[in-house]
Amino acid sequence: MKEYRVLIDCRDEKGLVYKVSSIFFKYDLNILSNSEFVDSETNLFFMRSVVSGFIDGNDLEKELRAVLPEKANLRIVSPEKKNIVLMVTKESHALGDLLIRYEAGELDANILGVVSNYDLLEPLIEKFGIPFYTVSHEGLSRDDHEQKVLECLAAFGEIDYIVLAKYMRILTPNFVEVYANKILNIHHSFLPAFIGANPYKQAYERGVKIIGATAHFVNNDLDEGPIISQDVKHVDHAHNWQEMQRLGRDIEKIVLSRAVRLALEDRIFVYGNRTVIF
Amino acid sequence: MKEYRVLIDCRDEKGLVYKVSSIFFKYDLNILSNSEFVDSETNLFFMRSVVSGFIDGNDLEKELRAVLPEKANLRIVSPEKKNIVLMVTKESHALGDLLIRYEAGELDANILGVVSNYDLLEPLIEKFGIPFYTVSHEGLSRDDHEQKVLECLAAFGEIDYIVLAKYMRILTPNFVEVYANKILNIHHSFLPAFIGANPYKQAYERGVKIIGATAHFVNNDLDEGPIISQDVKHVDHAHNWQEMQRLGRDIEKIVLSRAVRLALEDRIFVYGNRTVIF
Amino acid sequence: MKEYRVLIDCRDEKGLVYKVSSIFFKYDLNILSNSEFVDSETNLFFMRSVVSGFIDGNDLEKELRAVLPEKANLRIVSPEKKNIVLMVTKESHALGDLLIRYEAGELDANILGVVSNYDLLEPLIEKFGIPFYTVSHEGLSRDDHEQKVLECLAAFGEIDYIVLAKYMRILTPNFVEVYANKILNIHHSFLPAFIGANPYKQAYERGVKIIGATAHFVNNDLDEGPIISQDVKHVDHAHNWQEMQRLGRDIEKIVLSRAVRLALEDRIFVYGNRTVIF
Amino acid sequence: MKEYRVLIDCRDEKGLVYKVSSIFFKYDLNILSNSEFVDSETNLFFMRSVVSGFIDGNDLEKELRAVLPEKANLRIVSPEKKNIVLMVTKESHALGDLLIRYEAGELDANILGVVSNYDLLEPLIEKFGIPFYTVSHEGLSRDDHEQKVLECLAAFGEIDYIVLAKYMRILTPNFVEVYANKILNIHHSFLPAFIGANPYKQAYERGVKIIGATAHFVNNDLDEGPIISQDVKHVDHAHNWQEMQRLGRDIEKIVLSRAVRLALEDRIFVYGNRTVIF
Repeated sequence: MKEYRVLIDCRDEKGLVYKVSSIFFKYDLNILSNSEFVDSETNLFFMRSVVSGFIDGNDLEKELRAVLPEKANLRIVSPEKKNIVLMVTKESHALGDLLIRYEAGELDANILGVVSNYDLLEPLIEKFGIPFYTVSHEGLSRDDHEQKVLECLAAFGEIDYIVLAKYMRILTPNFVEVYANKILNIHHSFLPAFIGANPYKQAYERGVKIIGATAHFVNNDLDEGPIISQDVKHVDHAHNWQEMQRLGRDIEKIVLSRAVRLALEDRIFVYGNRTVIF
Repeated sequence: MKEYRVLIDCRDEKGLVYKVSSIFFKYDLNILSNSEFVDSETNLFFMRSVVSGFIDGNDLEKELRAVLPEKANLRIVSPEKKNIVLMVTKESHALGDLLIRYEAGELDANILGVVSNYDLLEPLIEKFGIPFYTVSHEGLSRDDHEQKVLECLAAFGEIDYIVLAKYMRILTPNFVEVYANKILNIHHSFLPAFIGANPYKQAYERGVKIIGATAHFVNNDLDEGPIISQDVKHVDHAHNWQEMQRLGRDIEKIVLSRAVRLALEDRIFVYGNRTVIF
Repeated sequence: MKEYRVLIDCRDEKGLVYKVSSIFFKYDLNILSNSEFVDSETNLFFMRSVVSGFIDGNDLEKELRAVLPEKANLRIVSPEKKNIVLMVTKESHALGDLLIRYEAGELDANILGVVSNYDLLEPLIEKFGIPFYTVSHEGLSRDDHEQKVLECLAAFGEIDYIVLAKYMRILTPNFVEVYANKILNIHHSFLPAFIGANPYKQAYERGVKIIGATAHFVNNDLDEGPIISQDVKHVDHAHNWQEMQRLGRDIEKIVLSRAVRLALEDRIFVYGNRTVIF
Repeated sequence: MKEYRVLIDCRDEKGLVYKVSSIFFKYDLNILSNSEFVDSETNLFFMRSVVSGFIDGNDLEKELRAVLPEKANLRIVSPEKKNIVLMVTKESHALGDLLIRYEAGELDANILGVVSNYDLLEPLIEKFGIPFYTVSHEGLSRDDHEQKVLECLAAFGEIDYIVLAKYMRILTPNFVEVYANKILNIHHSFLPAFIGANPYKQAYERGVKIIGATAHFVNNDLDEGPIISQDVKHVDHAHNWQEMQRLGRDIEKIVLSRAVRLALEDRIFVYGNRTVIF
């Protein structure tokens, strides 16, 4: 008995649940959990089933495709460790939170390596026996630096997710295209809000009473893309921007780690600029 | 085309989703939304489907029962206004929140009347043209008073839900049995915590940094029963217990109104001391 | 023995607390509560003391002014009911929340009247015996309509605060200037975020996982101005924008009522685009 | 120019702020921040001032004592690194969060060592170059084990705070007395709630919709004592107790780290079973 995650998203039609579940029934698969959602505005159908049983993957996939609408997205995934690469700059809070979880066996992933444009965090990462690669941007154009980062990433082979754990460089559309819907970022602010440098200073100056952070996929623009998770804390006039930043780091790390877990468990569907999360 | 809510809870077995959805398909019913959950600890299956189409209720019910396990609970509900009765004592915040929603047409219910052991809130309720009944407990034993309340309630005919909007009298098991899983209460505290008189004073004395409220069904004991909704606010040393109470009232009214809406939309399944909420 | 609120904001200097408290001591005033804050970025000092005793207001004020820096703002306020006017359009949730609190004696204010550009909410307001004034904008230019609203407001005499309880018209700088730092608004979104029409639809389309509301003073622009209070709720993909709006209304009303209470208790200092709240 | 934290708590009397601030003024001390609070129920006065200047500590203390009521608590503290010892059992999340902050220089403390009743976390702690001591409880009575732990702790010399970062052994009143108001604990639940083993399982079985954690000082009983910080997350029926526990760990570590920071910054006053936190 093995477990599989069956992930479907497609145009909605009458009978989809029936058709899919009849095939599960035929293959004697037990549904351990099942989530569906129809977005009535776009008429899209989303389904994530965790099933257990014995399957010949190809036949199940073929039969499912036969009953699904044209252009349906279908994935049948075994719950195995995914390969991830972390990218960081100088701050250690989001990285550290992932490392501690990794060490505790809480992260269902292999961290292939950590890439940074500085070597500041090398000592921390090496404590955990993870390869560290510095790709300095000094003296390089944005494109040239990114090309070097892409080469460094290419050397890892197949990467399931790239986690930007406070990587403070803007990525070009070219980079993003190579890893479409595979790059997770933590944005040091709500979205949409305070885009740009030092958002905590901006938030302080605006006199906000709440600060937050947003984990999202990166599409084209570092600060845009489908939102996965957000959280907030209340602040007041007595918080200067450095204290907002310190509080913000606590939100950032929890929100990013949550997004990473959701991705590793294949719980996220992306459509347009939105996500369905089961 | 009409809408129906199909509500199933039963022992889990392989193929339930398939069997139920095949009957929906046969009757040409379109699934507008569908939620399932299997509690793996108790092996119970819960399903709430909103379907649209034309049905002969009896036949659909018969066919569904034929494929469901023995002793399955099955309800097919038309989304019509439910009949509710409110019970209050002296505080107006939870009552007022429901009245304003009622006036705005936000509450999918007919408020048949409001019953109280004091006449203090009569002027407020009469503004909204709702019948008000005082059943004073003065000079009566608990049982005798409750008997009078039961008679007052019986005169309303069929009641879907009784909403205790800060009704500060303890109900006996006898009373609760008459309206099993039909009585919603707002508890002025977390559960389990600070059971008894003046919970905000207790919370203050304990020096808590968070206060909350709990909406729940009443089973046997006023302060027990399956939890529907909870919420909290942060407090600090500068909040005396009166201020905690004032903050608490804001939580109470929002949490109770939310629970009432969930009940009116048939979104709550009760099993043992727990709820599944879709 | 009477209570007074002494409110000071001025340039910070060494010894301010000492100088102020020595005058309280000289006048035999008991400090019931005391809050101070120095904004080190702007070098501004804020102080709110609640004192009890017998004072000849003029002399206390004179002596305090003598020890405070030039251009200090000083107010000595008796905790009496303030005069407020509500402005609304068509939605009743924020208005209703204030009315229920008013009826319960929870609001330390006289509601002089409610002004609206529609007559839709007249029946609700009249239940509470509060004068209602319709100032329709039909067929009028923005300036002409606002002129009529200003005339309507002028007839109330002295107004401490105007509460925009979902008043959906943009106010001109001219209007705002007349009631500078006296207009409270509830913004149906975070600030800064989703400014403009139907913010819940914008939030839905952006795929946010958190929605919120902001109470603020109105300065020049309806959606700008010093923030008083904010709150949020988590949402997910299953919330369409109408459901976000319904949840949002619950946040809006609580946040606005909180801001009104803070204003009535003289707890808010405004400086630039920020507030200090004690 | 040096900074000092002046911490006072005593019976309230008229003129305390004046008397204390007049001494600051006399010594030419600049008040950088000042917080006071009077608990009107107990008539206790609390004050925390951060001042800068040059002081002869003894004289300032003597003069302050002269104006304060009898039995006043007075501390004048230089903001130096405090000495702390961590105690753990098998879980790494709270410990790891502290280690990452320590490594980043965010924790204003020297971690003298980590003491555990198991050696499981030794590899993690040694990565950070911190001494680790296993004091196994195997084959020992509670008292004998505690005696050995006390000896281990005594060898560190002066300890400012002992942080129980998921130390899962109950401490006896004898132990607690040695380090009164110096032991910080993270309780895996609200207080008061679900005291005892596996609180997440208890919470799951109770069907709660919110889980939380509490950081507190340990007085006599592991699960009691003055509360410092609490936080919560919403859960629903789909969270089994293992998932509640995972979510709970995220709350626990943030709440504990926050409490540690408050303690290191001398922001906490304890009185009876309550805290004042500035």
